Amino acid sequence: MKKAAARNRFALGVDYGTNSVRTLLVDVADGSEIATDVYHYPSGEQGILLDPKDPNLARQNPADYVEGFYESVSAVLRAAKKQPGFRPEAAVGIGIDTTGSTPIPVDRQGTPLAFRREFRDDLAAQAWLWKDHTGHAEAAEITQRAARVKDRYLTKCGGTYSSEWYWSKLLHCRRTAPKVFAAAYSWVELADFVPAFITGNLDPDTLPRCICAAGHKAMYHDQWGGLPSKRFLAGLDPELAPLRDRYAQPAVPADRKAGELSPDVAAKVGLPPGVPVAAGAFDAHMGAVGAGVKPGTLSKVLGTSSCDMMVAPMDSDLPDVPGLCGIVPGSIIPGMYGLEAGQSAVGDIFNWFVSHLAPAAYGTGAEAHAGLTRAAEKLRPGESGLLALDWNNGNRTILIDPLLSGLVLGQTLHTTAPEVYRALVEATAFGALTIINRFEEYGVAVREVVNCGGIAEKNPFVMQIYADVCNRPMKISRSAQTCALGAAIFGAVVGGAYRSAQAAQRKMTGVKPLVYRPDKKAAKTYAELYRLYRQLHDAFGTAGYRGKLDNVMKDLIAIRNRVRKGRD
Amino acid sequence: MKKAAARNRFALGVDYGTNSVRTLLVDVADGSEIATDVYHYPSGEQGILLDPKDPNLARQNPADYVEGFYESVSAVLRAAKKQPGFRPEAAVGIGIDTTGSTPIPVDRQGTPLAFRREFRDDLAAQAWLWKDHTGHAEAAEITQRAARVKDRYLTKCGGTYSSEWYWSKLLHCRRTAPKVFAAAYSWVELADFVPAFITGNLDPDTLPRCICAAGHKAMYHDQWGGLPSKRFLAGLDPELAPLRDRYAQPAVPADRKAGELSPDVAAKVGLPPGVPVAAGAFDAHMGAVGAGVKPGTLSKVLGTSSCDMMVAPMDSDLPDVPGLCGIVPGSIIPGMYGLEAGQSAVGDIFNWFVSHLAPAAYGTGAEAHAGLTRAAEKLRPGESGLLALDWNNGNRTILIDPLLSGLVLGQTLHTTAPEVYRALVEATAFGALTIINRFEEYGVAVREVVNCGGIAEKNPFVMQIYADVCNRPMKISRSAQTCALGAAIFGAVVGGAYRSAQAAQRKMTGVKPLVYRPDKKAAKTYAELYRLYRQLHDAFGTAGYRGKLDNVMKDLIAIRNRVRKGRD
Repeated sequence: MKKAAARNRFALGVDYGTNSVRTLLVDVADGSEIATDVYHYPSGEQGILLDPKDPNLARQNPADYVEGFYESVSAVLRAAKKQPGFRPEAAVGIGIDTTGSTPIPVDRQGTPLAFRREFRDDLAAQAWLWKDHTGHAEAAEITQRAARVKDRYLTKCGGTYSSEWYWSKLLHCRRTAPKVFAAAYSWVELADFVPAFITGNLDPDTLPRCICAAGHKAMYHDQWGGLPSKRFLAGLDPELAPLRDRYAQPAVPADRKAGELSPDVAAKVGLPPGVPVAAGAFDAHMGAVGAGVKPGTLSKVLGTSSCDMMVAPMDSDLPDVPGLCGIVPGSIIPGMYGLEAGQSAVGDIFNWFVSHLAPAAYGTGAEAHAGLTRAAEKLRPGESGLLALDWNNGNRTILIDPLLSGLVLGQTLHTTAPEVYRALVEATAFGALTIINRFEEYGVAVREVVNCGGIAEKNPFVMQIYADVCNRPMKISRSAQTCALGAAIFGAVVGGAYRSAQAAQRKMTGVKPLVYRPDKKAAKTYAELYRLYRQLHDAFGTAGYRGKLDNVMKDLIAIRNRVRKGRD
Repeated sequence: MKKAAARNRFALGVDYGTNSVRTLLVDVADGSEIATDVYHYPSGEQGILLDPKDPNLARQNPADYVEGFYESVSAVLRAAKKQPGFRPEAAVGIGIDTTGSTPIPVDRQGTPLAFRREFRDDLAAQAWLWKDHTGHAEAAEITQRAARVKDRYLTKCGGTYSSEWYWSKLLHCRRTAPKVFAAAYSWVELADFVPAFITGNLDPDTLPRCICAAGHKAMYHDQWGGLPSKRFLAGLDPELAPLRDRYAQPAVPADRKAGELSPDVAAKVGLPPGVPVAAGAFDAHMGAVGAGVKPGTLSKVLGTSSCDMMVAPMDSDLPDVPGLCGIVPGSIIPGMYGLEAGQSAVGDIFNWFVSHLAPAAYGTGAEAHAGLTRAAEKLRPGESGLLALDWNNGNRTILIDPLLSGLVLGQTLHTTAPEVYRALVEATAFGALTIINRFEEYGVAVREVVNCGGIAEKNPFVMQIYADVCNRPMKISRSAQTCALGAAIFGAVVGGAYRSAQAAQRKMTGVKPLVYRPDKKAAKTYAELYRLYRQLHDAFGTAGYRGKLDNVMKDLIAIRNRVRKGRD
């Protein structure tokens, strides 16, 4: 029935990643790809605005988002129109997913401040990219205050508020760029900004705010009155309190329509006006949907960082899981708890190594990755004597601490680049296992792992190590564009092609025949190495450790920041 | 008087390093260089025979030593003869210094087993280079047994017997290459082999054994009956006991004549026969002499590894200093205690980084060192947020533990190669400071530091960091060839040009006008970083640490060795 109804109808998923935006056009009948296009953000370094004085800073030019929508959607439609039988009128809906928390300061009209001449070159007026950690002191302050007032704001986000999240960023702006803060009428998450801008409803007071960003990043709780109280916000800073009223509540899940494609945007990209647009969500959450997430299935989006997603029925007796990024009703699949965990850097660590420490013999970029992989996959587990921690970008789960840093241990005078490369891959796998263990320690059984994202797609070397380290089969999502597919699924739902996300998932998602299965011998050695990893993890990452090494990384960062800021 | 007596007379110093042998011809009046030549060992990788399956193995072909003497001494004499007024007959004596402990298995006639056809390709029959760590299990066994029998054998060598030392190597050969061990009538240190071979007295029973090798590496104690008892050796292995009788005792200091240049060797190199040859000593000890070591002066030989030497009057109340490599009467300056400490790798760590992890942009080899140095010296202390341990080749002082390994901590996604390079340099400086502190903790005041060796000569970047980290001026020995100069000093003494090594030192050694002085601000930051270094040092390097991380590096090495040996 549904199949017949869906025949020859299409949905669009627009996926805003860290360095680019991708548009995917799929057949709503089976999720198969009709056309796709990627637009690379032209600003900064691979789309990211950096500050050489502060490695924690990562911003983006909001103009890249607007241009990216026009360019990538137009290109997809041009390509699709070349196929016989395709008509733009058969597009039933559009879904949007983005990175997050990536808030954008906007004026009363909802226009990003960065579009104004006076703020054009002001880093504080740009979009604050998810991996911006400048607000780490503010995050610690929020954590402390939330713990004190016993407002339970943190119980569902692992007990610790992150520097990557909404209020840390706003508060840091208030403290360090008061002019920008004063000029901002409101702050809009990228996941809300894109639907707002393409539907023509940019008014900050009324534009729909998605449950995914609100619940996972802004301490929004449906059952406890929405966003944190004005009193709590004013306690952080009096200027934060008014922002609560300029944020439409209740927040909405992604199966809710945000609006319809505005005539001028429609004309620019070659679609008919009025196409339904779903409320946004974060890329990893949509990726989980596109990967077929369901109770018992862990969906891992493996790219520059990892997002590890699970869902649990709303009627289940779900405990608060310490160290998780969030447990939010409806944030992934409407009607279920969405559980979010993740690693702050995965592919970013491999890329860092290749960019900065790959010797000449391996070339650069993709060539270096390939050469190092060829050499590293010949090594046996444990053979290098190396062990690393995967904290080059801090730790998101389960320690939620941006002031942690990388570590490589065990080097001799014979240690080679492929050995270090492999140790870094293994470190991220140990981090992945730590997340799985945490879910299971709190009763959320992980019966299946479905991977998606660039690494899952293209890197058998990494995936085999994940299978061996986690001692579980690693499945791969059928679609190569899981996030965009997840977005398209919600496009299909708001367009009426399916009654629910789950119904759409059953038709539009699946896994590949190829499964990475653990090698027994490797798994045994990795079990030994993991015990040592946990020793380091606990020693450097937790305050309760007897050896008291948890100061080391933090002290180094404090000294570094002092020196870089010229206070030394 | 002495000056007049020494006018226009010359001494030769022949310095056997890790990769090459250098001969230096100096004027005995003031130590000034007349001619010098370097011969690079042709065998293996830069003179070292390696085993890809075992990173602990490092051997050398004894033929390289013989050829190296002929080639480098001949070349020096050819060069000197071109100078007006030089006559070979004016050579008063020859001194020899070598790496060590570098024992060579020899037959009844004193000929290295490696010269026999049946052993030519047998790694166990070659010279066991100082940095061969294959005997680490045997070293631990010797330490344990020596502690049990309370024979005091270890009190003067820091309480721990090293895998780099004589008996560890012999015992490991007995256990792993019994055929070679059985064929070896005796084992001769390279420092004793060279004087023996050039004077024509190769008989293992009678050739002079130097106090330096005997005292620092073979647990020889003048006052306690020489080498360890047969009973003790037999307790390790019955086959070790007979070797005690094939080792001439008492051991002799370097101001004692080993013999006279044999006619056939003399003819080959272009010297008259009968030139007096001094007993040998280790390169670092001779280097200390050439650098002008005296009570209160720490002499550092900074090259691939470091040797840190001090002397103390024999009448001083010198305690046993835990963690030192040795306290031996007469091993440096005859008539004084010689105190030896050192780091198992210094330049070797920088070279390892350049060989294995320097990115393409920096080129290779010397060019990469130069480029990384240029970038690293622009960084301020603490700016990188990195901290490293200098244990890529284990730790010689003060932990005496070859089963320690390297560590780099504090990496972000922006960490650059020059930052890591600088962190490694700083780590070796922290190791150097740890040695100075240990001397002073036990009442041996360090009033002056005189550096020599390749790094001291050519690397202002490293030397300034040493000054800043140690917060002391770093002086540089006047001679660029301090080890060879020290050897030549003993050549001058046995040749009668001076009455004593000290008398010769006063004329033949000195420091350069250039002194690296600590920068106050840098020293302050480094004091903070050093506290963190000590935290890691104690956590990973000492068993007494509350956090119990001392297993981590050892467990990794155990797993590595098991995997490499295919037992996994």
